[in-house]
Amino acid sequence: MTIHAWKHVWIVEPGKAPLYGNFVIQEETILGSGDVDIPEGAVVHEGKGRWILPGFVNTHGHAAASLMRGAGDDMMLQDWLEQVMWPREKQMNEHHAAAGQDLALVEMLKTGTTTFLDMYHLGVRRLAEKTAEIGMKAVIGRGMISFGSDSANQAKLEETRSLIKDFHGYDNRLRVCVAPHAPYTCPPAFLQQASELAHTEGVLLHTHCAETTQEVRQHIKSYGLHPVDHLYQLGLFDNELLLAHAVHVQDSHLELMAAHRTAVAVNTVSNAKLGSGIPPYVKMKEKGVRTGLGTDSAASNNNLSMIEEMRFTAMLPKAYEQNPAATHAGSVWQDATVHGADILGFPGSGSLAPGSPADFLIADPQQSFSVPFSPEKAASHLVYSMQSDAVKSVWISGRELMRERELLTLDEEKVLYEADKSAAGLL
Amino acid sequence: MTIHAWKHVWIVEPGKAPLYGNFVIQEETILGSGDVDIPEGAVVHEGKGRWILPGFVNTHGHAAASLMRGAGDDMMLQDWLEQVMWPREKQMNEHHAAAGQDLALVEMLKTGTTTFLDMYHLGVRRLAEKTAEIGMKAVIGRGMISFGSDSANQAKLEETRSLIKDFHGYDNRLRVCVAPHAPYTCPPAFLQQASELAHTEGVLLHTHCAETTQEVRQHIKSYGLHPVDHLYQLGLFDNELLLAHAVHVQDSHLELMAAHRTAVAVNTVSNAKLGSGIPPYVKMKEKGVRTGLGTDSAASNNNLSMIEEMRFTAMLPKAYEQNPAATHAGSVWQDATVHGADILGFPGSGSLAPGSPADFLIADPQQSFSVPFSPEKAASHLVYSMQSDAVKSVWISGRELMRERELLTLDEEKVLYEADKSAAGLL
Repeated sequence: MTIHAWKHVWIVEPGKAPLYGNFVIQEETILGSGDVDIPEGAVVHEGKGRWILPGFVNTHGHAAASLMRGAGDDMMLQDWLEQVMWPREKQMNEHHAAAGQDLALVEMLKTGTTTFLDMYHLGVRRLAEKTAEIGMKAVIGRGMISFGSDSANQAKLEETRSLIKDFHGYDNRLRVCVAPHAPYTCPPAFLQQASELAHTEGVLLHTHCAETTQEVRQHIKSYGLHPVDHLYQLGLFDNELLLAHAVHVQDSHLELMAAHRTAVAVNTVSNAKLGSGIPPYVKMKEKGVRTGLGTDSAASNNNLSMIEEMRFTAMLPKAYEQNPAATHAGSVWQDATVHGADILGFPGSGSLAPGSPADFLIADPQQSFSVPFSPEKAASHLVYSMQSDAVKSVWISGRELMRERELLTLDEEKVLYEADKSAAGLL
Repeated sequence: MTIHAWKHVWIVEPGKAPLYGNFVIQEETILGSGDVDIPEGAVVHEGKGRWILPGFVNTHGHAAASLMRGAGDDMMLQDWLEQVMWPREKQMNEHHAAAGQDLALVEMLKTGTTTFLDMYHLGVRRLAEKTAEIGMKAVIGRGMISFGSDSANQAKLEETRSLIKDFHGYDNRLRVCVAPHAPYTCPPAFLQQASELAHTEGVLLHTHCAETTQEVRQHIKSYGLHPVDHLYQLGLFDNELLLAHAVHVQDSHLELMAAHRTAVAVNTVSNAKLGSGIPPYVKMKEKGVRTGLGTDSAASNNNLSMIEEMRFTAMLPKAYEQNPAATHAGSVWQDATVHGADILGFPGSGSLAPGSPADFLIADPQQSFSVPFSPEKAASHLVYSMQSDAVKSVWISGRELMRERELLTLDEEKVLYEADKSAAGLL
């Protein structure tokens, strides 16, 4: 029974007054914080006044696509898809996917992400295995476009079923979702099949929805319905449902989501970079919609830092609405941690309360970006000023994955080398 | 005659194809790049495939205000000014100002800024002296609000005159500007006196202008004129003029600026955080207005990273206009380097061409954020993905100010400690 304890640390999480003192974990669980005794036999670490923070939870991404970082920026969406992304994705094989996945895993850990959701069509089983091996937490989904034959579509559902069987619940760290790509890439009958599968298996249902105005316009033309209304009518809201984007939605859609506990992965940076628009984040909060933050992929972000995602998510509504009080740092930080974890089915992760999973970061405030050093300003500094290299160590399920910026379960240098080499083959 | 040479480096700057090879400087000037010989007697550095980049130029800030980082975020502008900023600024003395200035200098160097403009009402001479001592380049201005007595106002102009006499042109690194605070804090007669002083002395005239809708509305009510039209009518456009912000302007104002080579310091992050709005950056470029980027102060940003400033400046117009092609990474990078230098009166700085001042950065692309490593992607990686700690070394006027992230002319640890202690006295 291994117990780790840190002395002289600040325990800092959103919505709570910072605690100074000890931080103790036993195996994969947080035992206590602040004014708690250090049990005999504990491995004791000197904390040097550093900050213990909850790990970040990235609720939407495509790890393998990291290989396409910087391939065709500043282009119109359709040109980018047709001239850059699709030709490259056609060339991609399992080796490329693996190289991109490892690149993403490195980047997520180095920016303090402990838990992520991934949807992709290639190398899905490999990502689940790799995530299991290196110690991160994730929800993995086989991204399913269903324009093909019925047998091809059924094979995709079968692949999902087999992922659930093999990985869902593994080590309390892996979960599997059912991930039809989008209402515009999956005909209604397939969406219903996917929905039924998620319902039967009791897993999260995840899909892109209402990312661009063009998509919404086209959907109304094709089906006479806004994609959100369409998903609702098809019965998808009866599931635990997570929509990525939801940029172009009306009040009525947000009310529908709130009433059904439908969650949204808000991808402010990707939506900005692709020119999709500004997500109605403030409206979502007002209407009581459950929100997490997501980076989307490095091909459209172009990085996987949740610190930057928080920064943009807090800033864009202020700028757009000309209202500095439109968003609050502490609330955005909650979405990036405990709310995201709750949405992904890892309740308690993203919190530092006793009994929570020991998923946490050790950050060094000894940077200009966090002066004045006050831990009461942690939300402000994290959301508006701190840089990702302030995250020194990462622990997940009580296991140390990064120590003083060195990754312990991934060979960073090799991963960067392989990803660079692999990307060269695509361009 | 000291010559430094780097072998095996990429010389990367906006708008030019990357060069691989040597990079040679002699005293304070760049001698040559790429396929050039290394002169006998040169101090030779192994470059390890790193990138030589032009230094960043921050065209608008208030260094001393760094001490107020995180004091009252997410508040309505007037509340923030009245409840947070003004009470603290009233308490501030020269010691506070010095602590804030040093904090800002540390942060600017660590994020790759080589040249900056500063406007403040306190400790101005001290900032000039400190900047001269530590080796950075700057334009320093005594921020002048002129609601006081005529003798108080004349004293402020006299202070500016004396700064010009003592520092303008010093070591080819310091310049002084005439800095009336804003059209709404300086009556017309004073603006004209300031303008005449700038004209007589042949120095830059710098003022805030059209930052918020309220300011513009109030100005029209008070003077019957938009602040830009007012400044024009008062003759300020006959000077080398740099306006900070210009968020709320019409096409006609931009055309007036373009016709008079009036420049704008675009402060996208600060404008967002204070809820002032989204600067019409794309329109400025279309109309041919000279633009540089500025962070404003850490009290409203909340950091001084020009990398982040580029990121937001590129992203917000894409999001707002729902057009990914609204901005281009290379063009934003130019504004953050060579265009900014040109506006501040340091022509050639911000460029790596032979004969240019040796103001440059050495960046390490061995991070996930710059994979694929291709130097052709430098603009994309810098603007959309790289983190500030990729900047390893900073040289200004041929002098090394940061080596492998260690500052050589400032005691970083002491500066952070002093700033933290000093800030505590203000809160």
